Amino acid sequence: MTRNFILRGTGKYIPKRIVESKELDKIYGIKEGTTEKRTGVKKRYYVENETNSLMAKYAIEEALKDAKLDLSEIDLILATSGTQQQPIPCNASLIQEELGLQGTGVTAFDINSTCLSFLVGLDMISYPLEMGRFKNIVIVSSEIASIGLDFSNFENSSLFGDGAVAFIISQDKEKIGSKILASKIETYSEGAHFTEIRGGGAFIHPREYEKRGEKDFTFSMDGKKVVRLSMKYGTKFVEELLKEANCTMDDIDFVVPHQGSELAMKLVGDKMLWPKDENRIVKIVQDYGNTISACMPLSWHILKESGRLKKGNKIMVIGTSAGVSIGGVIIEV
Amino acid sequence: MTRNFILRGTGKYIPKRIVESKELDKIYGIKEGTTEKRTGVKKRYYVENETNSLMAKYAIEEALKDAKLDLSEIDLILATSGTQQQPIPCNASLIQEELGLQGTGVTAFDINSTCLSFLVGLDMISYPLEMGRFKNIVIVSSEIASIGLDFSNFENSSLFGDGAVAFIISQDKEKIGSKILASKIETYSEGAHFTEIRGGGAFIHPREYEKRGEKDFTFSMDGKKVVRLSMKYGTKFVEELLKEANCTMDDIDFVVPHQGSELAMKLVGDKMLWPKDENRIVKIVQDYGNTISACMPLSWHILKESGRLKKGNKIMVIGTSAGVSIGGVIIEV
Repeated sequence: MTRNFILRGTGKYIPKRIVESKELDKIYGIKEGTTEKRTGVKKRYYVENETNSLMAKYAIEEALKDAKLDLSEIDLILATSGTQQQPIPCNASLIQEELGLQGTGVTAFDINSTCLSFLVGLDMISYPLEMGRFKNIVIVSSEIASIGLDFSNFENSSLFGDGAVAFIISQDKEKIGSKILASKIETYSEGAHFTEIRGGGAFIHPREYEKRGEKDFTFSMDGKKVVRLSMKYGTKFVEELLKEANCTMDDIDFVVPHQGSELAMKLVGDKMLWPKDENRIVKIVQDYGNTISACMPLSWHILKESGRLKKGNKIMVIGTSAGVSIGGVIIEV
Repeated sequence: MTRNFILRGTGKYIPKRIVESKELDKIYGIKEGTTEKRTGVKKRYYVENETNSLMAKYAIEEALKDAKLDLSEIDLILATSGTQQQPIPCNASLIQEELGLQGTGVTAFDINSTCLSFLVGLDMISYPLEMGRFKNIVIVSSEIASIGLDFSNFENSSLFGDGAVAFIISQDKEKIGSKILASKIETYSEGAHFTEIRGGGAFIHPREYEKRGEKDFTFSMDGKKVVRLSMKYGTKFVEELLKEANCTMDDIDFVVPHQGSELAMKLVGDKMLWPKDENRIVKIVQDYGNTISACMPLSWHILKESGRLKKGNKIMVIGTSAGVSIGGVIIEV
């Protein structure tokens, strides 16, 4: 069932500290140029003193400016990040605090599907928005990957970067906005442990850090297995998504993907029937790395800012997350 | 806007290990009977080897039996817990794995508003359910509070217990089900740090455990401040909720509250206009403690099992969470 929304504004915050791949080459003790060659990432950004909520605030402020909206007009802060600032309370409360919204009662909660959090959040919140529950919603992904990386392992650490992106979506029956034509979220838990941080929650408490060591408390990934799983289910997933939207890949003006390594994107993209024309795939991984759930909205934001996206264009926002989940939406913008 | 759903079935899992308040008296080194007297909690349950996902599985299996549904008929696993099993992936994926749903693609993701996660999840997912996105949804709260408690602090540790509850809700236009007549979620981030676990996320990584010590990685609460904030906003919140449902507190057959200490419930309940008749307030804290987001659905489940809840009754499910958020729904069952 189609849902309508007005994309009122978008904004981002990228940490000041640039980490070029040659800096990582030194950490890994490998030949300069190797990290870039193997990942396709030239640079990414790491936080210095920024918190998730501070980055979220900056991104939201930029999005409000873009939307020509005042903060007081927002009635929901939906935080959609794969990283949590602290276990309690949820990210959205801390973001509300950072925005200075104490005393307002503005609704704030989190949706989590790691790298797909933004997409799942947009998909799910489009229903209450359509039915009139909210008027102006901030969806914000603010990710600090860098603190949880294990630099003794190339694959698990070389790809990732930090950053935040905020989207403001509204309901206005009088205006012609964007339409979600199709959406799909599928979870394949045979891959639940392909991508994980095992420690830090109820299963392995931080008090076990010394005993267990770094590896249980940092990000680990079996990239090959994730790619293989995504390839296995990718074609059918995209075919069904296109069918629901009553269109073919030829009708999709831009694919806005979640972004892993160049090679992973190539392998998965082929199975997901992405267009051969590279201009129709919004690729930003070379400049930002994989910014977890901020990756898809950042790509979308950059596409929008480029002026290449025209009213009536169709985009497919698609990717995978830990879990393993595959998610996709087709939107007429 | 009213949303309809069929409550198909409910189930719970309570860990085998009973922790009576006199056991805690010994840990605290206080006179036998003091913990019970000060909290109103006689006993609570702590996990031994159970994980969040295992408890969730048991609760879901009981709910499926109650619903006379097969697991294969479920098309969404919505995990709504305040505690995460591990930082990555989300709880719902691990629950899907535990249920043996590998290869099915059943949608799985998390909604988090700590103690209000179940209520926020039910409220938010009722929109896509109403609009036909899903047919049979499992909402499951599975909480392990015990591992994150600081037993050197009475207030922060004495109340809490572990447990899991699952609800199965369905859409069936041919059947008369329950109606969400009103719902409201308000976040007051002036209380964002009244209730927290500061360490374990991106703000304080577990590798800082040795340096910082236990207190940054366990639950802390300024109960008085939470109660004061809830009292400040409680009356207006409930008045508006009742108004939206077009009824008065006299029309509410049962209040199903999130449950803190006896004293906190008395103070907040008075401001929230709860009925004087104790039979209309579903109180279970004496037998289970505060089971975080499992608390409200556990109370609701126990009310339903008691046979006291009749078709057409109105219930108010209401409570507060870290954040601080206040949430409430009025449902005609």
